[in-house]
Amino acid sequence: MLGIGILGCGRIGAMHAANIAAHPRARVAAVYDINVAAAQAVSRATGAPVMPSAAEVFAAPDVDAVLIATATDTHADLLEQAIAAGKPVLCEKPIDLSLARVDSCAAAIAHTTLPVQIGFVRRFDPGHRAVFEAVHDGTIGDLHQLVITSRDPGLPPEAYLEKSGGILRDMTIHDFDMARYILGEEPTRVFAVGSRLVAPALMDALGDEDTITVVMTTDTGRQAILINSREATYGYDQRVEAFGSQGMAVSENRRPHHMVLSGSTFTEHAAPLLNFFIERYREAFNAEIDAFVDAVENGSPVTVSYHDGRQALLLAEAALKSLKEGRIVTTGEIG
Amino acid sequence: MLGIGILGCGRIGAMHAANIAAHPRARVAAVYDINVAAAQAVSRATGAPVMPSAAEVFAAPDVDAVLIATATDTHADLLEQAIAAGKPVLCEKPIDLSLARVDSCAAAIAHTTLPVQIGFVRRFDPGHRAVFEAVHDGTIGDLHQLVITSRDPGLPPEAYLEKSGGILRDMTIHDFDMARYILGEEPTRVFAVGSRLVAPALMDALGDEDTITVVMTTDTGRQAILINSREATYGYDQRVEAFGSQGMAVSENRRPHHMVLSGSTFTEHAAPLLNFFIERYREAFNAEIDAFVDAVENGSPVTVSYHDGRQALLLAEAALKSLKEGRIVTTGEIG
Amino acid sequence: MLGIGILGCGRIGAMHAANIAAHPRARVAAVYDINVAAAQAVSRATGAPVMPSAAEVFAAPDVDAVLIATATDTHADLLEQAIAAGKPVLCEKPIDLSLARVDSCAAAIAHTTLPVQIGFVRRFDPGHRAVFEAVHDGTIGDLHQLVITSRDPGLPPEAYLEKSGGILRDMTIHDFDMARYILGEEPTRVFAVGSRLVAPALMDALGDEDTITVVMTTDTGRQAILINSREATYGYDQRVEAFGSQGMAVSENRRPHHMVLSGSTFTEHAAPLLNFFIERYREAFNAEIDAFVDAVENGSPVTVSYHDGRQALLLAEAALKSLKEGRIVTTGEIG
Amino acid sequence: MLGIGILGCGRIGAMHAANIAAHPRARVAAVYDINVAAAQAVSRATGAPVMPSAAEVFAAPDVDAVLIATATDTHADLLEQAIAAGKPVLCEKPIDLSLARVDSCAAAIAHTTLPVQIGFVRRFDPGHRAVFEAVHDGTIGDLHQLVITSRDPGLPPEAYLEKSGGILRDMTIHDFDMARYILGEEPTRVFAVGSRLVAPALMDALGDEDTITVVMTTDTGRQAILINSREATYGYDQRVEAFGSQGMAVSENRRPHHMVLSGSTFTEHAAPLLNFFIERYREAFNAEIDAFVDAVENGSPVTVSYHDGRQALLLAEAALKSLKEGRIVTTGEIG
Repeated sequence: MLGIGILGCGRIGAMHAANIAAHPRARVAAVYDINVAAAQAVSRATGAPVMPSAAEVFAAPDVDAVLIATATDTHADLLEQAIAAGKPVLCEKPIDLSLARVDSCAAAIAHTTLPVQIGFVRRFDPGHRAVFEAVHDGTIGDLHQLVITSRDPGLPPEAYLEKSGGILRDMTIHDFDMARYILGEEPTRVFAVGSRLVAPALMDALGDEDTITVVMTTDTGRQAILINSREATYGYDQRVEAFGSQGMAVSENRRPHHMVLSGSTFTEHAAPLLNFFIERYREAFNAEIDAFVDAVENGSPVTVSYHDGRQALLLAEAALKSLKEGRIVTTGEIG
Repeated sequence: MLGIGILGCGRIGAMHAANIAAHPRARVAAVYDINVAAAQAVSRATGAPVMPSAAEVFAAPDVDAVLIATATDTHADLLEQAIAAGKPVLCEKPIDLSLARVDSCAAAIAHTTLPVQIGFVRRFDPGHRAVFEAVHDGTIGDLHQLVITSRDPGLPPEAYLEKSGGILRDMTIHDFDMARYILGEEPTRVFAVGSRLVAPALMDALGDEDTITVVMTTDTGRQAILINSREATYGYDQRVEAFGSQGMAVSENRRPHHMVLSGSTFTEHAAPLLNFFIERYREAFNAEIDAFVDAVENGSPVTVSYHDGRQALLLAEAALKSLKEGRIVTTGEIG
Repeated sequence: MLGIGILGCGRIGAMHAANIAAHPRARVAAVYDINVAAAQAVSRATGAPVMPSAAEVFAAPDVDAVLIATATDTHADLLEQAIAAGKPVLCEKPIDLSLARVDSCAAAIAHTTLPVQIGFVRRFDPGHRAVFEAVHDGTIGDLHQLVITSRDPGLPPEAYLEKSGGILRDMTIHDFDMARYILGEEPTRVFAVGSRLVAPALMDALGDEDTITVVMTTDTGRQAILINSREATYGYDQRVEAFGSQGMAVSENRRPHHMVLSGSTFTEHAAPLLNFFIERYREAFNAEIDAFVDAVENGSPVTVSYHDGRQALLLAEAALKSLKEGRIVTTGEIG
Repeated sequence: MLGIGILGCGRIGAMHAANIAAHPRARVAAVYDINVAAAQAVSRATGAPVMPSAAEVFAAPDVDAVLIATATDTHADLLEQAIAAGKPVLCEKPIDLSLARVDSCAAAIAHTTLPVQIGFVRRFDPGHRAVFEAVHDGTIGDLHQLVITSRDPGLPPEAYLEKSGGILRDMTIHDFDMARYILGEEPTRVFAVGSRLVAPALMDALGDEDTITVVMTTDTGRQAILINSREATYGYDQRVEAFGSQGMAVSENRRPHHMVLSGSTFTEHAAPLLNFFIERYREAFNAEIDAFVDAVENGSPVTVSYHDGRQALLLAEAALKSLKEGRIVTTGEIG
């Protein structure tokens, strides 16, 4: 049983803790949060002790690895400390909102051979992964166009948005990673358009966008199209379409069940979509823990590396620059 | 161009006349109806002359064949007259409500080599036909179970019901034919249950049922299940499911278009079903005319023979007897 | 945490034990199987001690309730012993293959107020339950026809079939229960046909059937149609269709993911169905444990009562008699 | 009956002629093609006389209107001649490959009140039209993002490609029109990327692209994304997705029938898509003729105006400039 210390007991940290507690090969070894009440709640649910500091989590002998799910601006520091303490790390995305800090952290941990896995959980979704496989095993031939649609069910709180780093670094970043994962090569040219249609006044105040389209191309001419909105009334819209020379693979939306209703004014009325990411990506969150346990225990390569975390942020930066300057940005301009 | 005389200019006769008028290899050569106004309306739409009697339709030199779409109790007489006059016949179903009359008509026309095609139009539906082919080309292996669901969008007028011969001879008869078509062998044991759920008082008054399930088996053990209702609020429900040793083929319902709507309380809301048989079986009605023209002009065998018309009625009689006597009826008991 | 003793550590007992071990409100308190190796395997996976006999499970102070997943012919005895020992019971279906034994067991436990829940797990499936709700909250109006399709992915081993009590008591019994659950009233007339199409020689040897259709009616005229096969090459086919005066609710098949593939010879090729019951009814098995914990801890009524277990068996007996005698059987003839 | 003269008897002209011949309110009054054999074939099929020149078609007294389906570079001349001769025109798209010629033709016919309808047939597709209606009647709230996917089943012949004006003016032009139709306002900023993935050598030789993504925005921030490929092995992929503040409307692909097959290695295998535009847009081509007959006979406004034809070309020009210069192009730069 791998003993995992949980750093950060907010919504996502608590969810990870519950998954780890129910996992046959892992257990929660310690919990920490600057909000002690949050840590205590996770402690009660899992039986793991609350630690007074992250340092004591790193020092605890039965903590074999750590999961970092704290505020984004603490990720890089904690990651460096964890590696220094000899603990493998599963770190929530993004590593940091600043590419410079991501790179300095990379330098600080460059020497390590410990597993460092970044939390791009969507790679573990069975449907998205089946698209990945249909591309990489040649089922759909050479990939030509990749269309990723990600729409959230509703606008997050203003306080969240203020610290989010903007839609491209907060929300589209998942799609940058998914695009890299499925394309199998790096996008080199990035073009983005953003609109303020869901909450125009709030977006004006924040200098952010709520509706995004990004088009990226690789050097071989593959096209990736990312389509985002902060608010889809019909729920959490998560689709991936890969089009290739021999066919098309589409990962469709998911629902809690498949009861289909017909009545006098409609037919085939389906259940609402799974809402929100904790439900939609439930299997993926579990598979992410599986993969991390495998990496730590068996030395399997991590599925989502630190470099993957960095490259997704680099694409977000390129898209942001494209948005601001109204032009195509090459990734070489960024880093 | 095959000149076809139309006998009967009600809803279905008028529809056939319009299809024939637009058909590249057929034309309407004459029209007749005891309701002169109905005949005149079809005449105006097609340019074909109104004839004062069926006899004059049979005698007209440019009438190469006739379509019988009159009241059911006139079908057999007109069919005998047409054959006597040397005209190929496409006759709407059922041939007659009485199996004895069907058999006497058969005897009267036994000598002919002229094409006689019965109007079981659903055999020509592209989806149902694809199920037939998946069974008969071995795609789904040996057929084990056949489930046919036919539900009408709403109860017909009382006047219609009174003359219909009951739901088994009026509505289920299409499914008896479809079952024989796809099974590829004769059902020999028939069991039926009927309920009065849609319009109980009216059904009591008529001695009829509005909700039917029939189970039939063949001597090799294949099972056919027919499921009927006189009223489906969501529209005209027409499905065929063939289950075999190697797979399953299902002909699904059809819609006028495939615009799918998602909103805050539902997802994937589809368009209403095609409603009613003229829309749902539009291609089938055209293909039925094609097949008839082929039979007359090229000597192709008719797709739906007089014998097919008789056997469907025989199954309806067996089901009716099963319903009345509350027991399994063998087809050998009927004729 | 409710301590549950596991009696029977075969495939289904082991699955329940794993679910209970991961359940936030339950734990495995003891395990027992006549096959000690099987019990030890579950012990290793859950940390619960192996007991040398069922009696010692019943006697253990930290066993708050028991789950009976042993061979069918031991269910009734163990159930009586458990109640005598004051332990609530979750008992796998069927209670027994003999209605007489079911009734003598009922008499023996008649005095108890302890929860006794029977393992008709499909009632807990989210899709089937949504059909139940669409019927019982009036969404589809008055129920007219209920069509339940259950096809297994493949024939079980001959040794299993020999002890199964026949397809009606082993497989259709789930559909008898589902029919009662959704109909909301008792079927009173039962008609069944059986065929030997999947494995004719084996079925002849066993005196069993592999392909079943059952039609049942209630006193108000509702119709239930149960369609079974022992072998569907495309997987575990589990569908429920409820048709009513105001609409239709259909619980569709489920798949592990929703990646849809299109290629040069097909479009919309879906993933194979979830296969077999452990995967297909995973949520349902968990919800069944939830309901049992609620019944024990909060005194909630059990969702599937002992009486429900008896009535499903009674319908199976009626269907078997119908099959043998080739006639409609009323439930009053059975018990 | 509106007498329509057919100019151009190639594939699309012959199809229109057949539709008009079967139309209840129109007839083919005359046919013309520089290829006399092509004209004769349509003459034989429809009974209409072959004319030796377009001029004689315009002069024929029973020609009430004309349909222009000749080579693109003759459209504008014939359109001017038809208007000069007082004949309403239904002109296939594009009006011309040169925006300057489109504008000079506009000037030449500026004085006319005769109906001039451009052949953007997809506006008449029942599914796409249902999306239009869901946007314009407010069903999906304010439109935010419009995603149009158009992929052809296979590369056209090289000879066709050479004269096509390039993918943007030949293929994407339908999507430019569909975008304008559904957006309900003009796109003002256009960004395009093109790749050579289907037939790289041929595209290099032609200086054309086979894989296109265009992103357009309107002044209110609505986003339109057009996704094209010259070759989809699974058939003619034609989808429109409109996403708005209150929901989403999607026009899905269509198939010739809805027989769905399941077997040992797959489930829900659907029929291939309708292939190619003559089959896919059959109802739309008929509805286009209906609308034209209405415009001529009843003075209804044309659904697709000359201005619409011009604006689609303008967007194609902007996209072409964006492609060449690697930057966003505003429509104001073009005309």
